[in-house]
Amino acid sequence: MRVAEAGQSWFVAGLAGMCIGINAALISIITAWLSDLKMGYCSDGWWLNRQFCCWEIEGDSDGCDSWHPWSPAWAVRWIVYTIFASVFSFTAAHLVRSIAKYAAGSGISEIKCIIGGFTMKGYLGFGTFFIKSMTLPLVIASGLSVGKEGPSVHVACCIGNLVASLFSRYSRSQGKMREILTASSAAGVAVAFGSPIGGVLFSIEEMSSIFSIKTMWRSFVCALMATATLSAMNPYRSGKLVLFQVTYDRDWHFFEIIVFVILGIFGGLYGAFVVKFNLQVAAFRRKYLGSFPVSEAVLLATITALVGWFNRFIRIDMTESMSILFRECQGGGDYDNICQTSEQWTMVNSLFLATVLRIGLVIISYGCKVPAGIFVPSMAIGATFGRMIGIMVKALYRAYPRSSMFAVCQMDVQCITPGTYAFLGAAAALSGIMRLTVTVVVIMFELTGALTYILPTMIVLLVTKAVGDFLGTNGIADEMIRFNGYPFLERDDESYNVPVSRVMKRDIRTLPASGLRVRDIEDRLASTQIKGFPIVSADGTGLLVGYIERADLRHILDKAPHVQDISPDTPCSFLPDEGDQNHASLRVDIPGIAAGPAVGVDDDISMEIIETIAIPNVLKFWPWVNRTPLTVAPQLPLEVVMQLFKRMGPRVILIEDHEVLSGLVTVKDVLRFTVTEQSPARSPWDEREFEGIIEEVWTWTYGRAHAFVSLCRGFVRR
Amino acid sequence: MRVAEAGQSWFVAGLAGMCIGINAALISIITAWLSDLKMGYCSDGWWLNRQFCCWEIEGDSDGCDSWHPWSPAWAVRWIVYTIFASVFSFTAAHLVRSIAKYAAGSGISEIKCIIGGFTMKGYLGFGTFFIKSMTLPLVIASGLSVGKEGPSVHVACCIGNLVASLFSRYSRSQGKMREILTASSAAGVAVAFGSPIGGVLFSIEEMSSIFSIKTMWRSFVCALMATATLSAMNPYRSGKLVLFQVTYDRDWHFFEIIVFVILGIFGGLYGAFVVKFNLQVAAFRRKYLGSFPVSEAVLLATITALVGWFNRFIRIDMTESMSILFRECQGGGDYDNICQTSEQWTMVNSLFLATVLRIGLVIISYGCKVPAGIFVPSMAIGATFGRMIGIMVKALYRAYPRSSMFAVCQMDVQCITPGTYAFLGAAAALSGIMRLTVTVVVIMFELTGALTYILPTMIVLLVTKAVGDFLGTNGIADEMIRFNGYPFLERDDESYNVPVSRVMKRDIRTLPASGLRVRDIEDRLASTQIKGFPIVSADGTGLLVGYIERADLRHILDKAPHVQDISPDTPCSFLPDEGDQNHASLRVDIPGIAAGPAVGVDDDISMEIIETIAIPNVLKFWPWVNRTPLTVAPQLPLEVVMQLFKRMGPRVILIEDHEVLSGLVTVKDVLRFTVTEQSPARSPWDEREFEGIIEEVWTWTYGRAHAFVSLCRGFVRR
Repeated sequence: MRVAEAGQSWFVAGLAGMCIGINAALISIITAWLSDLKMGYCSDGWWLNRQFCCWEIEGDSDGCDSWHPWSPAWAVRWIVYTIFASVFSFTAAHLVRSIAKYAAGSGISEIKCIIGGFTMKGYLGFGTFFIKSMTLPLVIASGLSVGKEGPSVHVACCIGNLVASLFSRYSRSQGKMREILTASSAAGVAVAFGSPIGGVLFSIEEMSSIFSIKTMWRSFVCALMATATLSAMNPYRSGKLVLFQVTYDRDWHFFEIIVFVILGIFGGLYGAFVVKFNLQVAAFRRKYLGSFPVSEAVLLATITALVGWFNRFIRIDMTESMSILFRECQGGGDYDNICQTSEQWTMVNSLFLATVLRIGLVIISYGCKVPAGIFVPSMAIGATFGRMIGIMVKALYRAYPRSSMFAVCQMDVQCITPGTYAFLGAAAALSGIMRLTVTVVVIMFELTGALTYILPTMIVLLVTKAVGDFLGTNGIADEMIRFNGYPFLERDDESYNVPVSRVMKRDIRTLPASGLRVRDIEDRLASTQIKGFPIVSADGTGLLVGYIERADLRHILDKAPHVQDISPDTPCSFLPDEGDQNHASLRVDIPGIAAGPAVGVDDDISMEIIETIAIPNVLKFWPWVNRTPLTVAPQLPLEVVMQLFKRMGPRVILIEDHEVLSGLVTVKDVLRFTVTEQSPARSPWDEREFEGIIEEVWTWTYGRAHAFVSLCRGFVRR
Repeated sequence: MRVAEAGQSWFVAGLAGMCIGINAALISIITAWLSDLKMGYCSDGWWLNRQFCCWEIEGDSDGCDSWHPWSPAWAVRWIVYTIFASVFSFTAAHLVRSIAKYAAGSGISEIKCIIGGFTMKGYLGFGTFFIKSMTLPLVIASGLSVGKEGPSVHVACCIGNLVASLFSRYSRSQGKMREILTASSAAGVAVAFGSPIGGVLFSIEEMSSIFSIKTMWRSFVCALMATATLSAMNPYRSGKLVLFQVTYDRDWHFFEIIVFVILGIFGGLYGAFVVKFNLQVAAFRRKYLGSFPVSEAVLLATITALVGWFNRFIRIDMTESMSILFRECQGGGDYDNICQTSEQWTMVNSLFLATVLRIGLVIISYGCKVPAGIFVPSMAIGATFGRMIGIMVKALYRAYPRSSMFAVCQMDVQCITPGTYAFLGAAAALSGIMRLTVTVVVIMFELTGALTYILPTMIVLLVTKAVGDFLGTNGIADEMIRFNGYPFLERDDESYNVPVSRVMKRDIRTLPASGLRVRDIEDRLASTQIKGFPIVSADGTGLLVGYIERADLRHILDKAPHVQDISPDTPCSFLPDEGDQNHASLRVDIPGIAAGPAVGVDDDISMEIIETIAIPNVLKFWPWVNRTPLTVAPQLPLEVVMQLFKRMGPRVILIEDHEVLSGLVTVKDVLRFTVTEQSPARSPWDEREFEGIIEEVWTWTYGRAHAFVSLCRGFVRR
């Protein structure tokens, strides 16, 4: 039995992984085709993208006869490019709006909450899955400054949910379903980046609130199967999982740590800046753009295309631009003269513009009503910035090759590799926006294979994390959770100094342990939507006896008429009689604990139980009563209750004062308290005018820059 | 204040990391010198090892004039080699026995328990640290089939403990200390393998029972600082962290999955076999060899040296042998004709012998009374086995190059790379013995940089894990914990179907809330060693009021005489008076929760509190009384209580029946119950004779092989 169960959970995780891999391969193929369509077409067949059109032809950059740009004139090409961008974004936004609203956005925040125990009906349904998979290629191809990683996680979780629903063990158990969702989120990152271990770490560091070795193992299986399937389908025909393989021949030097620190600071500031102003934009969007999601997306795509065309790093695909920026200059790594000393200042300008422009575009685009992630845009921004710094350091070295700073450089070898700075910049920006560390190291490392750069990556992320902590930034996913008001307990522990009795709901509906009839229970169910009822003794003292879930009540009321004679007057019993004592309860409200004879009851078993207990004409609910709900005393500090929720994962905690039920608390109650009592209401938009925002952008940037300059001065003086 | 605290924890983790890095560099240098001393000496200076002796001389394998083997005759060299091995092992075992007994063994099991909350006085002290660091190079150089990774983790934790003890915030808080120990264990693995991220994952997957992002981050900082320090000290003078860098130019083919499955099965069987019989040896050792630890170690080293000399893969250092086995044949990867087709069957024999011999040596050596790890020996065994399989597959390919199985191979390129199988075999064996998965992938990958082999590694580990689960193997660290009877709750959840009342201690010592005098408390402290006292109301009803730690009682009794007049007759109070109501309690027994005004109280603050509350002549203990200890009802299922211990981490849970204290339960009580009630006593040695063991080895091997053959047949037939 145990082996079979374990086998089933492996099988489900593996099957979900395979489906995720297949879906990811399809998305990749369509995305590549649509992206190239903006630039030109293939005369051998309209369904071929540029790569396949020019297959087996050497020097595929320009010298392929079958591939035709739309026009020889750049202005016409520019217009066609913009038109395609608008059409793609219109189609995507329209599909999302009219069929599956949940397909919009990244989805990571919502899935975090779902894994934490929140339910959002339909968020992981087939409609969402289908529309998000369909529109994701359109959005990426439209050139909007958004990525495919967040949506890829969401799509993966939809697949995980749909696959697991086919198995009764999962469809009936929320806890098991959450485990599969965690595993699917790992697979989602794994296929988006071709980084299976990065995916597993992502699921640990970002998604799951309760860590367990079992869940980690399931994530491993799911990510492995997804990556293996993707690799077997080989959508890029390169046979590589690694998106932008780079091999840095040279080692890093200790003097470069100064540059690593600069990159780290950039990452931290970038994260703080984007999180802050993206929230402003989100508030603006909610207030003024709520009814124009399609126009907004089209407008954004058009602006991005019109403006982006003129910058060589924004015009091309973000992943392509990253792979160019990461490369070493030796061995064909040049693109558009990026390696030429004569062009260096033009390049610095161009990279600087790309960085600033892309930051602006990300701030306004992330969160618009199409599938949109923020991983890749952040990395692209970091890469342009890093490469810019790299070119500047290289210029410095060329100008003063004999300076003591460069003493370790040997004259005959290249000392500075700007590509590595681009790589580190990408890591810093990704870490800055998501507040992830270990995951980012592993992802960067699986993306590129740049093994010798593990230590520099870690140093950069150390600085990024320090800057982020100093500025008090949260990850964008957490900020979005807060912005949207989802019930999710954050991880950082604050001290509130209040007893749980101040937070609990006092006015609760209970059921007496005996004396109710079927009619009364139906009435109570009809009169309220709450998810469960504490059961108290019928003698009026209010002694707590147990707790029953609404779903179980409903289930028994629906099933019982098939096995016994039930009339609205049939009495109900929530406590076992003397003769029933040896029956254990089926219900314990803590994920991961099996208690009683038949937990994970599927329909057949529960029918059987109903039959055995359906003796004379009393409807017995007691096997479904959780007779040991988690109870605490009213004076227990709120912090302990929060930890109980986070670490034990119950849906409800009852408050018992001298054996008498005095209240009940759920995660929502705790959150309501922490939001209303502790922090003043946050409303980022707040009726401010546009100039106000511009001024704030300036003040923020200036203020942070100033603080850092003073800090550095302080260090120098000491 | 918050920023300063965060800063301090970064600083402590970083400082510990630096010390760990320095220590690791010293250990590496001494180990290399001692290892070479067995083979010969340097005429330029006795303190030079072979590498430095032959520095700047090309072709360092044989053509270095300053390096002299001990004698031209192989027999003399053999004897000198053996003598050195015995002397090294004698010195190490003697030092361990006479100065620091805790320095023996691996230490991972014990540290796991310490991080889980168990206290072992002196296990992380300076003596242990010093002797373990001193003897580790001797043991490795003696050629015993043991590794340095387990001891390296232990040494790192000693350093973490010593460094953190300098800061009062850590020395007074067990919870904080455990966090630093977790971080140090990450650094220990990081420096042993040069794998910082592997270290962080090790600390998550193996060491910590409660995962938190904060602890993970501290591990990251500590591992980074340790690795960076090691890299700056550059003990190998190679400038590389990567121990055996390999670059596999060629990609893997799907038909190789068959071989990956074989390697995975080997890993699983190897783990099960070694765990089982190493426990037998441990039982034998405890029973018969308890008083001869030094002779045992010397005997083992002598046997290893005498026998190992004749096998080319056992004679040399394990890490060296692995780096030879991992290499591709092209580009100078040949060693002792390992790549020659003519020698292939000799090599297979030699590798097979090395595998079998090393398995035997590991089984008898791991656990002997010197510092000894099992990571590297396992990897070495996996590598010899994998290379053997690789040579066989290559021979198969050479014999039938046109078989359909090899259809994807191109004729002009090498199709089979035996080195990759060695690499995968090493991963499988490591995962089989430790039951780690994600950690092993990352470590292997950081060790070698073989990025294209992530998917194959994951496939191999999937099979290894499946075989291990099928055979019901536990990791060797967990088995050792069970064997030694340490209090540690394992992670797998079993169902016991008993209420906590069957497990609790009923006969407990309590303190009445009032009416006691200082003399009474001194008496009670003297009469018992228990760690804390529940406090019950003084009116005889036994109502639970709170809980106080022994350490806090002691602390107040010691400090109070300095600030107020205390006589043995001074009355004591454990409950606040009316006027004190606004004072919160200082104590909550859950790690990671700050409650009340001054948790993490250091001496100064608590003196201050004593002063403020030392009004008229009553000694007030109440600020130290935890007035909200975790309490549960007697009928709560044992599983829930186990989860409370595991996830919330309290030291004690009180059982309250209708407000009256009825018992108390600790982790030890739970373990005592699970051991005595559930599983029959396990005593692996059991008076059996030697032939019995040999027979059992045979039966086990045959039985497992048979089961697998049937399983495979079943698959083929279907």
